[in-house]
Amino acid sequence: MARQGRLVRYLPPLAWGRAYDRVTLRHDVVSGLTVGVMIVPQSMAYAALAGLPPVVGLYAATVPLLVYALLGTSGQLAVGPVAISALLTASTVAPLADGDAARYITLAAVLALLVGGIQVALGLVRGGVLVNFLSHAVIVGFTSGAALLIGASQLDTALGVDVEGGQALPGTLAALAGALAGVNWPTFAVTAAGVAILVGVRRVARWVPSALVLVVVATAVSGVFGLDQLGVDTVGDVPAGLPSPSLPVVSGADLLGLLPGAVAIAIISYAEGISVAKALAARSRQRLDPDQELRAIGAANVSAGVFGGFPVAGGFSRSAVAAEAGARTPLSGAVAAGVVVLAVTALTPLLVDLPSAALAAIVLVAVVGLVDAKGARGIARTSPPEGVVLAITFAGTLLLGVELGLAGGVGASIVAFLWRSADPHIAELGRVEGATVLRNVRRWPVRLDPRVALLRVDGALYFASAMRIADAIRGLVADRPALEAVVLDASAISQLDASGAQELEHVAGELAEAGVALHLATVRGPVRDVLARIGPSGHLPEERRHATSEDAIAAVAGPDSPLLRPHPDEPAPEHIQ
Amino acid sequence: MARQGRLVRYLPPLAWGRAYDRVTLRHDVVSGLTVGVMIVPQSMAYAALAGLPPVVGLYAATVPLLVYALLGTSGQLAVGPVAISALLTASTVAPLADGDAARYITLAAVLALLVGGIQVALGLVRGGVLVNFLSHAVIVGFTSGAALLIGASQLDTALGVDVEGGQALPGTLAALAGALAGVNWPTFAVTAAGVAILVGVRRVARWVPSALVLVVVATAVSGVFGLDQLGVDTVGDVPAGLPSPSLPVVSGADLLGLLPGAVAIAIISYAEGISVAKALAARSRQRLDPDQELRAIGAANVSAGVFGGFPVAGGFSRSAVAAEAGARTPLSGAVAAGVVVLAVTALTPLLVDLPSAALAAIVLVAVVGLVDAKGARGIARTSPPEGVVLAITFAGTLLLGVELGLAGGVGASIVAFLWRSADPHIAELGRVEGATVLRNVRRWPVRLDPRVALLRVDGALYFASAMRIADAIRGLVADRPALEAVVLDASAISQLDASGAQELEHVAGELAEAGVALHLATVRGPVRDVLARIGPSGHLPEERRHATSEDAIAAVAGPDSPLLRPHPDEPAPEHIQ
Repeated sequence: MARQGRLVRYLPPLAWGRAYDRVTLRHDVVSGLTVGVMIVPQSMAYAALAGLPPVVGLYAATVPLLVYALLGTSGQLAVGPVAISALLTASTVAPLADGDAARYITLAAVLALLVGGIQVALGLVRGGVLVNFLSHAVIVGFTSGAALLIGASQLDTALGVDVEGGQALPGTLAALAGALAGVNWPTFAVTAAGVAILVGVRRVARWVPSALVLVVVATAVSGVFGLDQLGVDTVGDVPAGLPSPSLPVVSGADLLGLLPGAVAIAIISYAEGISVAKALAARSRQRLDPDQELRAIGAANVSAGVFGGFPVAGGFSRSAVAAEAGARTPLSGAVAAGVVVLAVTALTPLLVDLPSAALAAIVLVAVVGLVDAKGARGIARTSPPEGVVLAITFAGTLLLGVELGLAGGVGASIVAFLWRSADPHIAELGRVEGATVLRNVRRWPVRLDPRVALLRVDGALYFASAMRIADAIRGLVADRPALEAVVLDASAISQLDASGAQELEHVAGELAEAGVALHLATVRGPVRDVLARIGPSGHLPEERRHATSEDAIAAVAGPDSPLLRPHPDEPAPEHIQ
Repeated sequence: MARQGRLVRYLPPLAWGRAYDRVTLRHDVVSGLTVGVMIVPQSMAYAALAGLPPVVGLYAATVPLLVYALLGTSGQLAVGPVAISALLTASTVAPLADGDAARYITLAAVLALLVGGIQVALGLVRGGVLVNFLSHAVIVGFTSGAALLIGASQLDTALGVDVEGGQALPGTLAALAGALAGVNWPTFAVTAAGVAILVGVRRVARWVPSALVLVVVATAVSGVFGLDQLGVDTVGDVPAGLPSPSLPVVSGADLLGLLPGAVAIAIISYAEGISVAKALAARSRQRLDPDQELRAIGAANVSAGVFGGFPVAGGFSRSAVAAEAGARTPLSGAVAAGVVVLAVTALTPLLVDLPSAALAAIVLVAVVGLVDAKGARGIARTSPPEGVVLAITFAGTLLLGVELGLAGGVGASIVAFLWRSADPHIAELGRVEGATVLRNVRRWPVRLDPRVALLRVDGALYFASAMRIADAIRGLVADRPALEAVVLDASAISQLDASGAQELEHVAGELAEAGVALHLATVRGPVRDVLARIGPSGHLPEERRHATSEDAIAAVAGPDSPLLRPHPDEPAPEHIQ
């Protein structure tokens, strides 16, 4: 892809618009209509999950989609309300709203503004890298925990009981347990039938928009049989048409209260969107601009705040549907927005009879897919410490709530990484008996040279690992009285900091006093740059740095060293382990 | 060194005692006497720095030295009061003591108990590695800042004014500025003369114990001329003999208040001692047990608490003196303790006339050596981000106090390391024109193969770096339409976590859909272990993993690839950069 101009970078339609043709348009329209009929019921369900009137979800699925179509670089990403952001919205706004429904809506809109502002700001300073600090273990643990929280938070609507749920699982379940006697059975029947319809339709005909089918059927049944008379809660009267744009205003204290949640939503929703967008782009050999994506979703969130919506993001399942339906450019999202605008302006009178439990059923079925037990098992098997990180994140999310669970998970994953980096794999290498390869003495029967030891360090030589590495060298020297030289194979030392350099110089000096020379071999570019900046070294002069371990051994112990080839005409040893 | 028994590990005299002879004894006695005459004035000065009566310093330099002699593994480490721990003691105890001198002494003793308890506990769980997280940048910045704080805290004693100093530099200086009108000039004269004596004696005859000379001269002059009549503060009456052992008792709230300071002292004082002990041990090809060292210094601190002292550590300058005076075993410290016991029992009556300003002069001269501007410049030049960490630690210590400065420095150094690790050096390699080495395309004119790209990643492939590395691979594929394969040279990938493995599998899958094969070469043992635990991979099967990059290129593009040797009889390419 050619180097792009500045304007094109900030206004992607200038790039994809030039090659736009009728074939592309047909694909975008078909996929846009497909996503549109999917997004109408989903956005209402996620608004309800966020504690908002379902129509707010529809508002959030109109202008923000058009804004993203103008600024986004992914042809497949389907923007709109998503489950995790909705849950985070509820947990952020509910404690501040104090049960005031109007205030709740205003706070949710301000939250979208804040999220958008943070995302645009991060996008302007190339801050998208922050999402890299969410490890897979944290994402799987958090998403699974949040899915259970979401499910639990929908049980009151699903059962037709009225409870004040807590921010975390124990509170929510305790509140539910106390209200179980008051279950409204017709509501429960709607939920059960709804789940059955969603699962059944998907099994029988995968391409039928099951949520739309459920909404139509549930609304019709509810209207015909007057379910609201049986105590089934319905969506009720909804104003037709889009709200006019306005800037929601709250106090400074409210802004401060919304900030932690806004930061969490800004980062998590971007992470969810960018990961799916990247996967879909790579499949079609397209290239994404992660920072422009951040600015685009940020602008979409700002517009969600101005048009009475709540935080939006690129959704996982919807985007996959868009890609499979052939979406080519962000225009596909604009077509989906058209479908939602139609629904808002023409169909809202029909929503009067839509049972809330039907929306709860949509959420319940959606979150089942978010609990990723297989992924969790895979992570725990691949890397047990990360299994612990995952467990901490999962348990923290369930027991302490989404923000604390996420923060604890990120902290734990950083500690786990530091812990491992502080204790790098260090292998002494010897020559495999009768062969020419150099391998770990602990794994293979090898020949050693009593005068020279060859040590390979796999990892960064930095403040936390420097002492361990130096101790390994000191230990070798203490254990082998005949040792004259230690060769440090630096081929896997990726990083050297001032502490590492100083410790290396220290240990070289100590070895020199004990009559042992320290040599370096296969020093990588970034490490060599650091050594060059330090300047001439007393104990590690230039002539003690060698291109390869073999060069170093030959220089120190001569060509007859047992660490080198048994016969001069055999090929040079290579070290793999 | 042979594998040691369990008992010997916990009671090192069983090891060094067996080879003990008259020569060793002579060395230990000479060095012990040398350190003893040095430690008497120093420990009084550091006690004064800690805000305690000077005799408390003497108490801290008796039994704890014997305990260390019994449990320590370093023959050269000279335990006793040290400057930084004294400063931390003052900053921890002063806010809790509320100006009550007796309470101050009790709290300092409890602090020593707490420090000792923490160190013993860490030593039992092999927690000594914690000190590795103090980078050189943090240590230099913290020590330099603390030295300035110490110097400032001594100015009131040095000038003979009475002020309530703050925890940080601005408060201390502001308090001093307000009291400058009341300077006691005879006191200032004692300080100035004291500094002159210390510097002068050291210049003229390096082996004369300058602090002892100063204490003797100052006491004599003060007694003969009655300096206390001129407003010069003196040490005053001191009870002769050692205090009997007792367990100091404070409230739970006080314990909690002492805890942060105790943690800081436990880690910092151990770090100071172990680094000097290691350097001295390596010089004589001895081996230290860092965890037993932690238990030994911990037990010494517990005894300091029981015998009315305050936190002790292995001192930097004293240990160097001990080593140069020929110390061989921890028995040397027991001899030094004997000197101090003699001073406590026989010489305390003479201390009545010792001017406090003479002790302040000892501290002032000692801390000058702690400000390490040269080390700071070296670190900033070697690694600019670490220069920033150093500046943060230094400024934080001066402006916010020792605990916050240290915590901020550790946090900053971890963030700096993560930031660099998250963005590893990634080099595409090509063959140098006319030669056989593979080098970075950005640094050298090289040949490439349009069908195969060779990428080397220098660093851990983990959650924070995985996306960047995957994006580099995606970028290559997007930029080169003719590409059929990407070879990832993993020789410098030291670590792979579940996120990295998943991202690698993802990007391999995306490449496969775009018709590009991803191959791995030179995978290190720890990384291979992780791949093995994941099990068979769909997009990275065993046959796509190669021993060397050359094998991979030959397998993918055949022996005629421009990345391989120009003629078959030339040696194989090697890659260094």
